[in-house]
Amino acid sequence: MGLMTAGQYEESLRKLNLVVYQFGRRVENVVDDPIIRPSMSSVAKTYELAHLPEHEDIMTARSHISGKKINRFTHIHQSIDDLVKKSKMGRLLGRETGCCFQRCVGMDALNALSIVTYAMDGKHGTSYNERFLKYLEYVQENDLICNGAMTDPKGDRSLPPSKQPDPDAYLHVIRETKDGIVVRGAKAHQTGAVNSHEVIVMPTMTMRAEDKAYAVSFALPSDADGIVYIVGRQSCDTRKLEEGVLDQGNILFGGHEALVVFDDVFVPWERVFMHGEYDFTGLLVESFAAYHRQSYACKVGVGDVLIGAAQTAAEYNGVEKASHIRDKIVEMNHLNETLFCGCIACASEGNKMAGGTYLVDVLLANVHKHNVTRFPFEIARIAQDIAGGLMVTLPSEQDLRSPETSKWLEKYFKTRADIPTEERMRVLRLIENLTLGTAAVGYLTESLHGAGSPQAQRVMISRRINMLEKQKAAKKLCGIDIA
Amino acid sequence: MGLMTAGQYEESLRKLNLVVYQFGRRVENVVDDPIIRPSMSSVAKTYELAHLPEHEDIMTARSHISGKKINRFTHIHQSIDDLVKKSKMGRLLGRETGCCFQRCVGMDALNALSIVTYAMDGKHGTSYNERFLKYLEYVQENDLICNGAMTDPKGDRSLPPSKQPDPDAYLHVIRETKDGIVVRGAKAHQTGAVNSHEVIVMPTMTMRAEDKAYAVSFALPSDADGIVYIVGRQSCDTRKLEEGVLDQGNILFGGHEALVVFDDVFVPWERVFMHGEYDFTGLLVESFAAYHRQSYACKVGVGDVLIGAAQTAAEYNGVEKASHIRDKIVEMNHLNETLFCGCIACASEGNKMAGGTYLVDVLLANVHKHNVTRFPFEIARIAQDIAGGLMVTLPSEQDLRSPETSKWLEKYFKTRADIPTEERMRVLRLIENLTLGTAAVGYLTESLHGAGSPQAQRVMISRRINMLEKQKAAKKLCGIDIA
Amino acid sequence: MGLMTAGQYEESLRKLNLVVYQFGRRVENVVDDPIIRPSMSSVAKTYELAHLPEHEDIMTARSHISGKKINRFTHIHQSIDDLVKKSKMGRLLGRETGCCFQRCVGMDALNALSIVTYAMDGKHGTSYNERFLKYLEYVQENDLICNGAMTDPKGDRSLPPSKQPDPDAYLHVIRETKDGIVVRGAKAHQTGAVNSHEVIVMPTMTMRAEDKAYAVSFALPSDADGIVYIVGRQSCDTRKLEEGVLDQGNILFGGHEALVVFDDVFVPWERVFMHGEYDFTGLLVESFAAYHRQSYACKVGVGDVLIGAAQTAAEYNGVEKASHIRDKIVEMNHLNETLFCGCIACASEGNKMAGGTYLVDVLLANVHKHNVTRFPFEIARIAQDIAGGLMVTLPSEQDLRSPETSKWLEKYFKTRADIPTEERMRVLRLIENLTLGTAAVGYLTESLHGAGSPQAQRVMISRRINMLEKQKAAKKLCGIDIA
Amino acid sequence: MGLMTAGQYEESLRKLNLVVYQFGRRVENVVDDPIIRPSMSSVAKTYELAHLPEHEDIMTARSHISGKKINRFTHIHQSIDDLVKKSKMGRLLGRETGCCFQRCVGMDALNALSIVTYAMDGKHGTSYNERFLKYLEYVQENDLICNGAMTDPKGDRSLPPSKQPDPDAYLHVIRETKDGIVVRGAKAHQTGAVNSHEVIVMPTMTMRAEDKAYAVSFALPSDADGIVYIVGRQSCDTRKLEEGVLDQGNILFGGHEALVVFDDVFVPWERVFMHGEYDFTGLLVESFAAYHRQSYACKVGVGDVLIGAAQTAAEYNGVEKASHIRDKIVEMNHLNETLFCGCIACASEGNKMAGGTYLVDVLLANVHKHNVTRFPFEIARIAQDIAGGLMVTLPSEQDLRSPETSKWLEKYFKTRADIPTEERMRVLRLIENLTLGTAAVGYLTESLHGAGSPQAQRVMISRRINMLEKQKAAKKLCGIDIA
Repeated sequence: MGLMTAGQYEESLRKLNLVVYQFGRRVENVVDDPIIRPSMSSVAKTYELAHLPEHEDIMTARSHISGKKINRFTHIHQSIDDLVKKSKMGRLLGRETGCCFQRCVGMDALNALSIVTYAMDGKHGTSYNERFLKYLEYVQENDLICNGAMTDPKGDRSLPPSKQPDPDAYLHVIRETKDGIVVRGAKAHQTGAVNSHEVIVMPTMTMRAEDKAYAVSFALPSDADGIVYIVGRQSCDTRKLEEGVLDQGNILFGGHEALVVFDDVFVPWERVFMHGEYDFTGLLVESFAAYHRQSYACKVGVGDVLIGAAQTAAEYNGVEKASHIRDKIVEMNHLNETLFCGCIACASEGNKMAGGTYLVDVLLANVHKHNVTRFPFEIARIAQDIAGGLMVTLPSEQDLRSPETSKWLEKYFKTRADIPTEERMRVLRLIENLTLGTAAVGYLTESLHGAGSPQAQRVMISRRINMLEKQKAAKKLCGIDIA
Repeated sequence: MGLMTAGQYEESLRKLNLVVYQFGRRVENVVDDPIIRPSMSSVAKTYELAHLPEHEDIMTARSHISGKKINRFTHIHQSIDDLVKKSKMGRLLGRETGCCFQRCVGMDALNALSIVTYAMDGKHGTSYNERFLKYLEYVQENDLICNGAMTDPKGDRSLPPSKQPDPDAYLHVIRETKDGIVVRGAKAHQTGAVNSHEVIVMPTMTMRAEDKAYAVSFALPSDADGIVYIVGRQSCDTRKLEEGVLDQGNILFGGHEALVVFDDVFVPWERVFMHGEYDFTGLLVESFAAYHRQSYACKVGVGDVLIGAAQTAAEYNGVEKASHIRDKIVEMNHLNETLFCGCIACASEGNKMAGGTYLVDVLLANVHKHNVTRFPFEIARIAQDIAGGLMVTLPSEQDLRSPETSKWLEKYFKTRADIPTEERMRVLRLIENLTLGTAAVGYLTESLHGAGSPQAQRVMISRRINMLEKQKAAKKLCGIDIA
Repeated sequence: MGLMTAGQYEESLRKLNLVVYQFGRRVENVVDDPIIRPSMSSVAKTYELAHLPEHEDIMTARSHISGKKINRFTHIHQSIDDLVKKSKMGRLLGRETGCCFQRCVGMDALNALSIVTYAMDGKHGTSYNERFLKYLEYVQENDLICNGAMTDPKGDRSLPPSKQPDPDAYLHVIRETKDGIVVRGAKAHQTGAVNSHEVIVMPTMTMRAEDKAYAVSFALPSDADGIVYIVGRQSCDTRKLEEGVLDQGNILFGGHEALVVFDDVFVPWERVFMHGEYDFTGLLVESFAAYHRQSYACKVGVGDVLIGAAQTAAEYNGVEKASHIRDKIVEMNHLNETLFCGCIACASEGNKMAGGTYLVDVLLANVHKHNVTRFPFEIARIAQDIAGGLMVTLPSEQDLRSPETSKWLEKYFKTRADIPTEERMRVLRLIENLTLGTAAVGYLTESLHGAGSPQAQRVMISRRINMLEKQKAAKKLCGIDIA
Repeated sequence: MGLMTAGQYEESLRKLNLVVYQFGRRVENVVDDPIIRPSMSSVAKTYELAHLPEHEDIMTARSHISGKKINRFTHIHQSIDDLVKKSKMGRLLGRETGCCFQRCVGMDALNALSIVTYAMDGKHGTSYNERFLKYLEYVQENDLICNGAMTDPKGDRSLPPSKQPDPDAYLHVIRETKDGIVVRGAKAHQTGAVNSHEVIVMPTMTMRAEDKAYAVSFALPSDADGIVYIVGRQSCDTRKLEEGVLDQGNILFGGHEALVVFDDVFVPWERVFMHGEYDFTGLLVESFAAYHRQSYACKVGVGDVLIGAAQTAAEYNGVEKASHIRDKIVEMNHLNETLFCGCIACASEGNKMAGGTYLVDVLLANVHKHNVTRFPFEIARIAQDIAGGLMVTLPSEQDLRSPETSKWLEKYFKTRADIPTEERMRVLRLIENLTLGTAAVGYLTESLHGAGSPQAQRVMISRRINMLEKQKAAKKLCGIDIA
């Protein structure tokens, strides 16, 4: 069918029959649920921009299977240029939505599987790659959203999967039939889960022989029998239920995460991409993680929004020319562009893998993501500094509308004559949204933990550094013999 | 009457007739309003602890007027020891409430006025100090909460008060009568405003001759005619309206800020402490600011809570012995205790002012507060790192209670066998509360802007440093003649 | 003649007749001067590596004029790939020499002039580009070292060049003849000056009409009549005069800077590349600065050496497995690779200028350099932490050699049985060299000021950011109308 | 004899017969050795200031034994006030000398022994305290410099003392005689060793039963038979041997460290303060470490010098009013005063130990020292930023004096008309001295490792924090039952 429009995307979601819970109740109409809908709108943006000529080069690609123009989010990277454009697409969408647009995780899962299914076949003589390519064609053809699902609940962190008191703490195959497998378990923190057409499951870590049943990867329609979604709550989520929109800060877009339960779900063979090949779980996790750490390019775009908001707040206060304000704006930009350097460099230094897929430089992707666990927090702190205390003491939109109180707000929150008080309130609420509210979940906490917590990157940096080369260089210079 | 109990305090509030707005509507019953009440409970803690023998030494003092035992929050510091105990009282209450307990601002206003009324009388032959002491005795005798009100809305930041398009952008005297003065204007960001018996108004900055009408300080009952309160909203404030308490994080305490409007309010002469003496506005602002910057000792106590919560979350995940977790806990403590050093040092280096009141070391108080604008943000980042992503993807308490979903939460959020899932949820919600929710308003944003934004401290540091002494030392050592 | 060898380079220097002063005396034999020679050896490395097959791809290029293989340091960048390889060449040589190898500044000057001469001709109908290309061919053909000279002494910082009490505070044309121009002035901080065959002079900042005489750029042989060099001293420079080499730390390589005085020096017309076109001084300064800020890729290579040395010191102490040591090594690498991301990204995002030369992304080059003003200091701090206090309390090499004291050093500085005490001393001296000694000049102080001090980058970041785009994005999201 | 004068101190050193090696040769005249002498001058300052009325209160105390006025460096702290004054004395002397003045380590050893000898006697019925007090009286009476010697070479870090291949890797008792004990081993990094009258030896860490022979503490005259000193070298040490003094930066003062070898040295019983009581080694190490970590108050004074030098350099360049320069000066001061807060707070929160000696708060002393391992590095980085690149490219003093080159230096290093070029050079050399040269050894590297490396403080912080209290506070607030 080619590229979907945002409208077609919304309609396609209406046809799904998802089992979604929120606040202890089944959500009957997911698409129109006021808390979930803004997150759907973010995903819709990935469709909308693909139709705009000015973004076509970034947002679309040519399928290496069909040769057709496809949304880049369904593309397998065929070159360094593809990897670089992926980073730029992330920044673009981050800036357009001011939050998480959820679609990168599926793209990263597809690309990782493209590498790993090819590698498995090479060693084990399986034909996962063929299956995978067929599935990929289906995804590309129908321009689908895939939810890439990796993180298991993990139970007792000191025990491996097969030794857990509850064997379901990690998702696993509980039986095999002629037609496929049956799986049980759950995936936590699933970004964009209820806005997806498909879910692609991968193991959460390197498995050993005894955890073979946990070495499983597959794809399913998101409304397959037995899949249950429980939506997590976010700071300030219920502001979306209030009258008026001003207090939401970002009045257009949002994100969501869900716990996805697999309650004995059947997967047909043609959708199984790994089944017991525990020796490839490491490669799958590492490839997916590298791609997904690159994906934190999006935070540069969200940073753009926060910087723009801080500058606007400074102008509304009439202090944008104060030297300390200018210096703080420079610092925010410096940090944000340092993050941009990271996601560009890991792409630019990418490599062609056996099978033809391009993978980012794993070391630099980890370095990039590790900076993402730090700089947004400092950018947010500076934004709050510039915004001023009013950001957290501002009365509600209802106070602005009420005849009894609006006069006081209009009178006492007035700064420059040409700036309506309401606009000042709007930009402060946006900064609140990004540093304390629903978007802070994505910009701050998810920047820490998404695609792996800080320590995961440190372990990878430690592994990927060529320390011997550095030691040889040092020893040579000070005259120590290098045997 | 001596020391009030927490219960008596609550009853005393019920007798007030405050005009309070929230969400565009008049709040009929302020004390029992679910959003405001937790902040009242925090203030009540300042009464409760004063009755406990283990905290008596910290929480109470001997009045230098009456000789009676009084709550330290109404005390005028008579020694270095008093100043040090004030810092420790702040940490204690921060740890007990996990938020802002609102009473320090009145204490700081009283102490600053004690210095400034004495100084004014010396120069101008006025008798403000006598008036003030009479007022102080009333406050001590009745163990009252005073809201210290300094920050004006400020309108166009590039213009002085008397040049503002709206002359009310700064609070000022609009007329004088035989019995007193009539004032108009507003004070913004007033912490604890609607939990107070009294409001003490001070000018917001150094005034010059042309702004004489703005050089005014006075005290009034909080429900005086013409005073209107509009309560600001906070991140996650409406969780307090939800069924269940778990999702509030801190299920006991909170804070609030309000815009306080003075709509042509009459002040009798005996309550006026400055009226046109613009040459003393600088001293009043600087003294109050120094005391109030010391008061950010409280954030050390809130830091204690966040550290305790992070350690608990790590234990519940079974990872508390991992070297990187231990190291992060050390770092949090190191930063928190560095803050403690600041509030102790500025007290320990305090000085006796003319009139007998002890003032903290102004330079060090500013240095202390300046660190408070930085370290809590890093402590919060580390806390989120340790807590894990679940902190922001956790379903609601209702999901835990619902028969349809509770089984999944119980099953998949289980970690150590001995830890109930509910307790894990509770501690994660507390960390969310402190880093994104209602308490983040106090622990993060207020740490930036309360008692003056970062730049205000930098200006003071610049002024208070003896640079000449340093330059002399340097020049002597490198052989440059010091004429 | 094609690529010179390191030996030929040394011989070519011997033929120069430079006027060099050091410690108040004329240096008769520059090449063999013990303090200068290690810096010559660093430059020689740029010749040596160009002949090694494993480095050929990075170290050489194909001339776009002659089509011949040339040293990349004399190449005009023809593609993104050229820009990326330049960054990698910098890291490679930094790692090989552990210090500044001095040749990048000439490369950056040539590339900047390639852009600016082309642009000037377009506007002014001059033929500078033709002249420049002829000169370039000569440089490429003879594989020469060019010293790019930009920084003027500047005298009174508050006055422009033509208003200075001493008109020579900035280098300028003092007269014009039939055959050329005569210039007077000086260039400060000239890295590698006395190891160069040529000096290329550029203006130090944007000039205005009244400073036309200061808008001058030209090239001269380094031993042209009237050029005088006064070599600056470095921390620990005289250790190179001592018996033994161990205490030098880096026993092979070094750097130097000099004040270069132009005492009424004649420049023939064919060597003049700008003469009064003040409207192009801004472009020249900005292009050169952008290229040269990219060149701080070299510090990543020096960082490699310091990391290698720290790891070795930890191993020699037997503590390399301690978790805090491992974590510190990760941090050093993380910071170092973040710098690498910067120099790769600004290259990867480079652009083709009119005339065909590729220029790095100016914003990102500034961001990169700005990080170089910060991270090496933290890397150095960690290296000293790992090295231990012995790094600064170690007795001299002579104590190790003396029969009276060597027994004590051998006995008491012994750690692991398999590590000779001398090797432990060697690696500690290398860390001292890089963090306090001659190489600290390059790794730390020059990282701050070379290619522009931190504030210069902040100004450029401020100018190059598209703030309007960010503000539009923010306003759209919070519902503020964008007219 | 009462307080010695600086002159008497110098004479007293001439009477010693120390065995000192430097550069592989015996130093015949220690006092007049050009490299060592500046460090003697620093120590002399501790005598000189004690005679000045303006410093008497800080520099002297009343002996609790004799009741006589003594130098505070020989005093046992009798109150909080004594502890606070100790911190101020450190800052004062750091500012006066711009380097390490070496005398604190002996004071800290005396105070720690005062606590531990008393405690040992209580448990073991020994009479160490009496012996110690007699020794103390001798030290006070004669106003002596004691070198406190703790750090052993440690050999293989993975083995305890008694398991080392070389048993002398830790200093130990090799035999006992009727009159005393004979010891063997060494102490490394001994600050001020050759300027001391006495050496006080303490064990380097907590010992266990099997390491009993290593649990030894005693005092000896510094020139006792068998003690050998090997002086360590410092960055730029030999500039003190050059003609002229300008290039030294600090032309008056310096520091030194030495390896002190105990080659079978006899100690009479009356000088033995611990002999096998391994159960008190922990207390001795911890008390000494706490006192000595407080002593890093001195770095605040050195910071004063560096800030003064940076401000002066900015003024000489005429840029002191630029907003970024002013902001950097504020930042340096802010960090420096934060350090001051630490050393004041740990003193102000000190406690009286059994026996009457006051000990600093151990947690806060560790927090203070831990900040000292960080902030001076950032202060130094900013100082170099302000100083400008000339700091490391400046020619030598000889170039300034030489008739051939002085004209160029005078001409081209001139900035403001009223500032002699020589003064500009002097202040830049002072900044070089403090950030790269001899004083950087003390201000930077010693700030890391002196009184224990960073990790040592982290371990202590971890041990001294009351984590349970924090967890209880957190649990109470989120409704978790505290059994």
